[in-house]
Amino acid sequence: MSLHPMKLVTVICESVLEEQVVELLRDCGVQGHTAFDVRGSGSQGLRNAEMRECGNVQIEVIVKPEAASSLLENLRAKFFEHFAMVAYESEVRVLRPQKF
Amino acid sequence: MSLHPMKLVTVICESVLEEQVVELLRDCGVQGHTAFDVRGSGSQGLRNAEMRECGNVQIEVIVKPEAASSLLENLRAKFFEHFAMVAYESEVRVLRPQKF
Amino acid sequence: MSLHPMKLVTVICESVLEEQVVELLRDCGVQGHTAFDVRGSGSQGLRNAEMRECGNVQIEVIVKPEAASSLLENLRAKFFEHFAMVAYESEVRVLRPQKF
Repeated sequence: MSLHPMKLVTVICESVLEEQVVELLRDCGVQGHTAFDVRGSGSQGLRNAEMRECGNVQIEVIVKPEAASSLLENLRAKFFEHFAMVAYESEVRVLRPQKF
Repeated sequence: MSLHPMKLVTVICESVLEEQVVELLRDCGVQGHTAFDVRGSGSQGLRNAEMRECGNVQIEVIVKPEAASSLLENLRAKFFEHFAMVAYESEVRVLRPQKF
Repeated sequence: MSLHPMKLVTVICESVLEEQVVELLRDCGVQGHTAFDVRGSGSQGLRNAEMRECGNVQIEVIVKPEAASSLLENLRAKFFEHFAMVAYESEVRVLRPQKF
């Protein structure tokens, strides 16, 4: 058995954006994703520290390490100026990585 | 684009504790969180190894690395003696970290 | 307070497999798990690159580092040939690790 180092990229955003985010991920070559509804709170940027409650979605994809940065950059360029979105990457070691 | 090393702190507990946990997180300066319902099983401590099924919630927050330990310590002090709770931290690299 | 390095093992599979996967995890000595429903897409192996939408479940367990590999190997041996399944491990640092 071999485990391969990959990146898990996690995106948290308003539920209304799910389809657009998944479409962008596919355009970036991502072959699979998971999504699930989350509730939560966040600051609306630096100018407004008030908390707000809203329906959000958490989207997770596994990508090759060298693909994570460009994926995040594309998310930033398309969504970050206009929408509340959190995105981060972390290290995972994946069984059967040829799927990604 | 820059990615900033942060900590993801994950808490799994009985759903009835969600509000109290989120309140503690806010008291610790956390500005956003996500929460979602999970089902699962766990041992009820060392004295009772029987499994039990219950409705739980998973709560996730991203914090500065130096804040994670004190957050976990506060969770431990307030909840661990009296409630079934799992808490852990992991490394993430976050886009737009000024939100946290 | 002490944090202990452990492995988080994540399994994503068709919902119909949840019970079998949890049973295998317990047979491997895992004392607790969380599970939650996810939606998503994935390629059906290398022969078929078409996307499919389906109801999936994400199952997460925390195990001692030395137990993760054998857990993943058991998952691979039992499920990977016949079912769409993604499995990966990541590093976490856990409060109160004596539960696992």
